[in-house]
Amino acid sequence: MSDSANENCLFCNIVAGNIPSTKVYEDDETYAFMDIAPASEGHVVVVPKTHTKDVLEADPAVYAATAKAAQTVAKRAVEVLNADGVNVLNNCGSTAWQTVFHLHFHVIPRYTDKSKDSLTLPWIPKPGDLDAIKAVGEKLAF
Amino acid sequence: MSDSANENCLFCNIVAGNIPSTKVYEDDETYAFMDIAPASEGHVVVVPKTHTKDVLEADPAVYAATAKAAQTVAKRAVEVLNADGVNVLNNCGSTAWQTVFHLHFHVIPRYTDKSKDSLTLPWIPKPGDLDAIKAVGEKLAF
Repeated sequence: MSDSANENCLFCNIVAGNIPSTKVYEDDETYAFMDIAPASEGHVVVVPKTHTKDVLEADPAVYAATAKAAQTVAKRAVEVLNADGVNVLNNCGSTAWQTVFHLHFHVIPRYTDKSKDSLTLPWIPKPGDLDAIKAVGEKLAF
Repeated sequence: MSDSANENCLFCNIVAGNIPSTKVYEDDETYAFMDIAPASEGHVVVVPKTHTKDVLEADPAVYAATAKAAQTVAKRAVEVLNADGVNVLNNCGSTAWQTVFHLHFHVIPRYTDKSKDSLTLPWIPKPGDLDAIKAVGEKLAF
């Protein structure tokens, strides 16, 4: 394993080849492989090769490179699998469904054919309280 | 509006200031504002200033810049709002829940306190058929 790897990390071990994976894409900074518990046909996980926990800790260049690789994989998946859409999802923290604590983007091709697609809408958009939203926005603003 | 804007596009009009928004962040390439139908407290939408439809059509530099801005906002949101996690989500195509056809990342702070967080798990991970997964991976591989 490289010096930047964490020997206890599942994804570092996949990148190092210590744990087998079905590789889809690789470049100097990133590695992409098939998710073995897929949400849809063609669900891929894209990771940086260097160990970093999540969006909060990742170097911005690493985060951007991983997103770019996710885009490459998303385009490929939609084209090759004739998908009807795609989600690119990065989860941070167990409350946000992160289960492996090495930064990753899920690339999830989507299908109107539900035999290939198990996803359900994670939230139903409905108008919020505009004053409350504005107040939070003022706290967040740079 | 700039030459790169689409006058019929909601998010181009928000970037141009023709439609009001609560701005959270802005740089040369991107603009971030509060979602008015939030999935959680502090839900922000991050868009490129130039009009591009989705991950399939976006210039890779634009996609990466938008992801980087989403990271900046995600870090800020978790810190300021004391969130327990965050999701960064990019939807492409109506089958994948895209409703505005101008590339955007949702930055959704997450909370164990469900009064601030309406999200539900979009899929339940369960082991897939490894032979089928490998076969799809071989089709996807570069």
